[in-house]
Amino acid sequence: MAEQRGKLIVVSGPSGAGKSTVIAGLMRRRAGLCFSVSATTRPPRPGETEGRDYFFVTREEFQQLVNDGALLEHAEYVGNCYGTPRDYVERKQTEGLNVLLDIEVQGARQVRARVPEAVMVFVIPPSLEELERRLRGRHTDAEEKIRSRLARARAEYREADFYDYIVINDDPETAAEELDAIITAELCRYQERKTYLTEVQEL
Amino acid sequence: MAEQRGKLIVVSGPSGAGKSTVIAGLMRRRAGLCFSVSATTRPPRPGETEGRDYFFVTREEFQQLVNDGALLEHAEYVGNCYGTPRDYVERKQTEGLNVLLDIEVQGARQVRARVPEAVMVFVIPPSLEELERRLRGRHTDAEEKIRSRLARARAEYREADFYDYIVINDDPETAAEELDAIITAELCRYQERKTYLTEVQEL
Repeated sequence: MAEQRGKLIVVSGPSGAGKSTVIAGLMRRRAGLCFSVSATTRPPRPGETEGRDYFFVTREEFQQLVNDGALLEHAEYVGNCYGTPRDYVERKQTEGLNVLLDIEVQGARQVRARVPEAVMVFVIPPSLEELERRLRGRHTDAEEKIRSRLARARAEYREADFYDYIVINDDPETAAEELDAIITAELCRYQERKTYLTEVQEL
Repeated sequence: MAEQRGKLIVVSGPSGAGKSTVIAGLMRRRAGLCFSVSATTRPPRPGETEGRDYFFVTREEFQQLVNDGALLEHAEYVGNCYGTPRDYVERKQTEGLNVLLDIEVQGARQVRARVPEAVMVFVIPPSLEELERRLRGRHTDAEEKIRSRLARARAEYREADFYDYIVINDDPETAAEELDAIITAELCRYQERKTYLTEVQEL
């Protein structure tokens, strides 16, 4: 059979849900995954490599990408623009790799609208109390910042109905296992494999 | 969290696809599964137990079940009627068990119509050539029967568009792993877990 085209998997969730740990667990479990590389107007930091960490572009170039519809999603963050280049993602998918996007809820919503077949996963902690505990456990955030993150999580929960899956990160290994299962299942979808059936019909 | 309601998983596919081996592999991998018990008008055979192997009913009782819409699917096979009792399946699902139905394509189509949220899985061999090889390998079927099974498989492939997933049984362990992943993923679906999010909104 021809190499199966990879899936685009969007992972998002509130700050403190533990996405990075879950994704790290997934990478240990599963081969054939790659991270998307973002375009950004932020200048490179020491050690960052063009095309590996980011695609570094000027504001004008970034605006051109937006105008051309060449970004799956984009956002501005502390004065710099970030976006996901559509052609990079599609090239990796064509190579048979499953592409992971770790982005904010607003970006996820943009991808949902532009790539209906993307797999949208919302990673959440087992409860808001637990989220609060985790945010406080970091000892890095001021009280005001914690409050604002909790309020934001609630707001995100209310508008999460565009996600396909919810992974509850109680234990990161179980959550990684679920994310792994979601990718496997999505690759088994009828739409993904129907060519098998049509080839047979032409025999 | 309240015990999650189990899923109804319908597994079907052409004779010779190796469904039974795949299902046996799944049972070894995963707890919390149960098989549906069918109602039948066939008389019990020695060793068969009411309620474990089948629910044995008269023709009149069977017809009443059909009239009452109490069967998720039913069919006649060499003069006897077989059907899947809706209340049995729902009771097991309420207990949190994932219920497996191993049925023919026609029965699967009936379940799809009656239980839209059922998970429909089509198990197929890697190719029709391989199916033929497997059917011949049994050394039990006459040439005519093999021909008719192959023709039937082709016909089933043509009308398989109501399935959610296709599991290609090249290696039974991999196929069991995929079936396992499909169940895990289905239990992570947004619709399954959105109560988590709504509970939070009411805090």
